[in-house]
Amino acid sequence: MPLLSKHLLGLEGMPKNDIQLILDTAESFREVLERPIKKVPPLQGKTIANMFFEGSTRTQLSFELAERRLSADVLGFQVSGSSVSKGESLKDTARNIEAMKVDMVVMRHWAAGAPHYLSKVIDANVVNAGDGAHEHPTQALLDMYTLKEKYGRIEGLHVCIVGDVLHSRVARSNIQGLKTMGARVSVCGPATMIPKELDRLGVEIYHHLDDVLQEVDVLNVLRLQLERDAGRFFPSIREYHNSYGITRERLEKAGRPITIMHPGPINRDVELSADVADGEHSVILQQVLNGVAVRMAVLYLLATGN
Amino acid sequence: MPLLSKHLLGLEGMPKNDIQLILDTAESFREVLERPIKKVPPLQGKTIANMFFEGSTRTQLSFELAERRLSADVLGFQVSGSSVSKGESLKDTARNIEAMKVDMVVMRHWAAGAPHYLSKVIDANVVNAGDGAHEHPTQALLDMYTLKEKYGRIEGLHVCIVGDVLHSRVARSNIQGLKTMGARVSVCGPATMIPKELDRLGVEIYHHLDDVLQEVDVLNVLRLQLERDAGRFFPSIREYHNSYGITRERLEKAGRPITIMHPGPINRDVELSADVADGEHSVILQQVLNGVAVRMAVLYLLATGN
Amino acid sequence: MPLLSKHLLGLEGMPKNDIQLILDTAESFREVLERPIKKVPPLQGKTIANMFFEGSTRTQLSFELAERRLSADVLGFQVSGSSVSKGESLKDTARNIEAMKVDMVVMRHWAAGAPHYLSKVIDANVVNAGDGAHEHPTQALLDMYTLKEKYGRIEGLHVCIVGDVLHSRVARSNIQGLKTMGARVSVCGPATMIPKELDRLGVEIYHHLDDVLQEVDVLNVLRLQLERDAGRFFPSIREYHNSYGITRERLEKAGRPITIMHPGPINRDVELSADVADGEHSVILQQVLNGVAVRMAVLYLLATGN
Repeated sequence: MPLLSKHLLGLEGMPKNDIQLILDTAESFREVLERPIKKVPPLQGKTIANMFFEGSTRTQLSFELAERRLSADVLGFQVSGSSVSKGESLKDTARNIEAMKVDMVVMRHWAAGAPHYLSKVIDANVVNAGDGAHEHPTQALLDMYTLKEKYGRIEGLHVCIVGDVLHSRVARSNIQGLKTMGARVSVCGPATMIPKELDRLGVEIYHHLDDVLQEVDVLNVLRLQLERDAGRFFPSIREYHNSYGITRERLEKAGRPITIMHPGPINRDVELSADVADGEHSVILQQVLNGVAVRMAVLYLLATGN
Repeated sequence: MPLLSKHLLGLEGMPKNDIQLILDTAESFREVLERPIKKVPPLQGKTIANMFFEGSTRTQLSFELAERRLSADVLGFQVSGSSVSKGESLKDTARNIEAMKVDMVVMRHWAAGAPHYLSKVIDANVVNAGDGAHEHPTQALLDMYTLKEKYGRIEGLHVCIVGDVLHSRVARSNIQGLKTMGARVSVCGPATMIPKELDRLGVEIYHHLDDVLQEVDVLNVLRLQLERDAGRFFPSIREYHNSYGITRERLEKAGRPITIMHPGPINRDVELSADVADGEHSVILQQVLNGVAVRMAVLYLLATGN
Repeated sequence: MPLLSKHLLGLEGMPKNDIQLILDTAESFREVLERPIKKVPPLQGKTIANMFFEGSTRTQLSFELAERRLSADVLGFQVSGSSVSKGESLKDTARNIEAMKVDMVVMRHWAAGAPHYLSKVIDANVVNAGDGAHEHPTQALLDMYTLKEKYGRIEGLHVCIVGDVLHSRVARSNIQGLKTMGARVSVCGPATMIPKELDRLGVEIYHHLDDVLQEVDVLNVLRLQLERDAGRFFPSIREYHNSYGITRERLEKAGRPITIMHPGPINRDVELSADVADGEHSVILQQVLNGVAVRMAVLYLLATGN
C-alpha cells in the first residue's frame, strides 16, 4: 500500500491512512535502530540531495542518518558559496540537481512554500524538512510516533502546544496531524503569539498555563526564538518564564503525570526548566531517536511507492 | 587503451584520440545513469579528494555524484577554516593529502595553473575542475559529448561561443577541444570581451550576433559575470542584452534551428531569455546529465590507466 | 585484549600496555594502507560523528579517512550554522547525537576538557582530537608510531620538543606518552614558552638549541602560532627563527643525524627551514601517513573493545 502522494510537503490534508502507514512503517525501522548493525539495503544506489537553505544540526543529521541507514547515497548541498549566492533561481538549481538523476530532495527553506514549488518543477520526490513558519511534517510525525509509543494511541489524548504558536511550523504541522488522528488539541501562550483563526480548526486556546495543566496529558513545549522575539511579542524573558515556563513546581501543582515534549534545541530555564527537561516524564530524547526511524519510514515509502 | 596523460589538466594539446576515448567511455556510463541502480564498482576502495578553493554547486555536485556512482570514497575539502587559512602552502596541503594515500585529487582553484602545479608535486591523479580564467576541461568534454549525442559528430559543426570569452575558462577549453575534433569555431561578443590572439587559433571573430546566426549550428552562451563585469566591459546589462542576449525573436529571424548550450548558472533574460533556455532547441539540462557521465569516464580512465 | 578505557581522552595516565596495543594494532592497519584497496570491514554499520568545533584540515581528513577505511558511516558536524550558534549547550548537542544511536564521537574543541565532559554525559565512545592547549593524544600516538617505525623502539631515545610548549597540546600528549614508554624527553624554547612545572615530570628544560643538539636523537618541532604569539612571547619572528629555527647549518654543526618531526602545518623558514622539512632526516610525511593507521587502530580498538 503506497502513500497517496509522491511528496511529503505537509500534514495539512494528509489522509489518516497515510499518517498511520508512516507510523507503522517507522515501527519496523525503530527496531533496526536497536540492532548492532543499524543499516538496511532498500535505498542502495538511490541518491538523495539534502538542500538546507537554513542551518539545522538536528534535522540535518537526523535525515542524513536515516538516509545512510537505508544505504542511500547522500549529497550535501552547500548553500553558502553555491549557485544560490550567484543568483540562480531555486527552479534552475532544482532542475539541475534533478538532471543529474537525483532520486529525492530533502529541503529546508526559510521561505514558506519553497518545497511545494520545487515539487511542481521536478520529478524527484520532495520531502519538506521545514519551510518558513509553515510546516515541518517529519517533526510532527515523530512527535505522534512518540505519543503512540508511550500511550499506545493518539486518539483521545489531550495535547497542548505551549509558546510561540504563531511563528511555529512545528505547531502548525502538529495541529494538522493530531486533529487528523483524533487527538484533542489546545494551544497556550500570550495573545501576541496565538493566531486567532485556530479555533476554526477546532483547537482550544488558553492564555493561562495553570488552566490547561488541569486537563492535559501532554505538553509540547516550543522553543522561544530569543534572538527574534524578546521584547517584541512579550515584555522580557523573565516574564515569559514566569507565565509560560514549564517548571517542576508548576507540574506538581497540577497533580497529574504530564508528558513533556520539545522539538529542540532547548533554552534551558526559559521555556523549560532543566530538571523538567531531564525528568522522568520527559520524552525529548525518545523524540530524537524516533525522528530517525520516522524519517527512514518516509524516505522508504516515497522511494518505493511510485 | 589508456589515456596518454595521468592527469586531466586541460584540453590544450590533448590528442584527438584521448578526447575520443573519453567521449566513447562516457557513452557507456551514460547508460548506467538510466538504470534504476546507477552505481558501478570500478573505483571501490579508491579515495578521491575534492579540493574546491572556489564555490561551485554544480561542478562539485557533478563530480561528487560521478565519484560515488563509481563507488569511490569521497573526501570533501573544507577550504574555509582549513590549513589554508592558517597560511599553509598549496604544496604542503597537497603533499599531506597525498601522504594519506589519496588516489585522486579534483581541484577547482581561483588561480590559473594551480592544478598543473599540483600535478608536479604529487603522484596522485589530478583533475582540473576549473582554474582561474584558464581551463575547465570537463565542461568542454561534456559540451562535446552533448554535441555528439545530438548530431552524431563534432567534425564540421559550426559552434559559436557568445559572451565574455576573455575571462572564460569554459570558452578556452571549448575552443581547444572543438578545434582538435575538427569543428568550425567562432566567438561573438563586444570587442572588450574577445581576446585578439584568437584568430591565430583559427577562431572566427564576430561582434554582431545577427551575422553569425545565419551560419551557425550551435550557440554556446556564456554566463555574464554580472557582479564583476557590468559597467566595466559593457555599458549596461540592458545594452548587453540588446546586443548579445539570445531571444526567441532573434533566433526565429535566423530561420534555421540553432542548438542552445549554456554552462550554467543562467542569468535568465540577460544572456539568454527564459523561453529560449527552456525551449525545444535547448540542450542545457542534457549538458548537466552528460556532465556526470563524462566525469565518470575521466575518473575511470585516469584511475585504471596507470 | 581490549583497551582499559572506553574513550581516548589523553595519554596522561594511560598504561604502557594500552599504548603498546594501539601501536601494534596500527602496524596491521599500516599494511592495509599499502594495498590497492585500502578498505576493511570491521566498522561496517557503525556511525561515527566528527564534531569539530575548531578548524583542522589535516586532523579532520585523517580521521575521516581512517573511519571510511574501516567502513564506518561518517557524520560531519557543521559547527557554524548549527544548534551551537543557537546557544544549545554542549551537553544537549551530545545527548541528541547519542540519542540518534551514534556509536562514536570524535571531538576537536577549543576548550580544554570538552571531550572529557562529553564522555561523562554520553555512552558512545569519545575520541579527543585535540582539546584547547590540553591534549592531542592521536598526534602523540602517531609520533610514537613513527619513532618506533624508524628506530624499532621508543625506550631510551632522546626526543626534544622545540618551541611553544606552554600552549601546545601536541607537546603535552607527547611528553606523557614518551615518558610512559621510557624515552628521555626534553623541551627547548624561550622561557616564556616553557611551563616551569615540567621538571616535576622528569622533562629536561633547555633554552639554547645548540646545547640540546649535541645529545638528541629526534627533534619534534612545534608550529609557531604566528597570528597569536608574535610580539607577545618573543620579540619578533626573525629573532625566534635565529634562536629556535631548525636549519641545515645548525644541524650540520651538531654532527649527528637528527630525525625531524613536525605536527603540521609548517611555517616554512620560521620554525623549520624548507630544506630541512623536505630533507633526508625529515619524517613529516610519514607522520601524516601513520596518522591514518594509528587512528584506524584507536577507532577499531574502542569500537570492538566493549
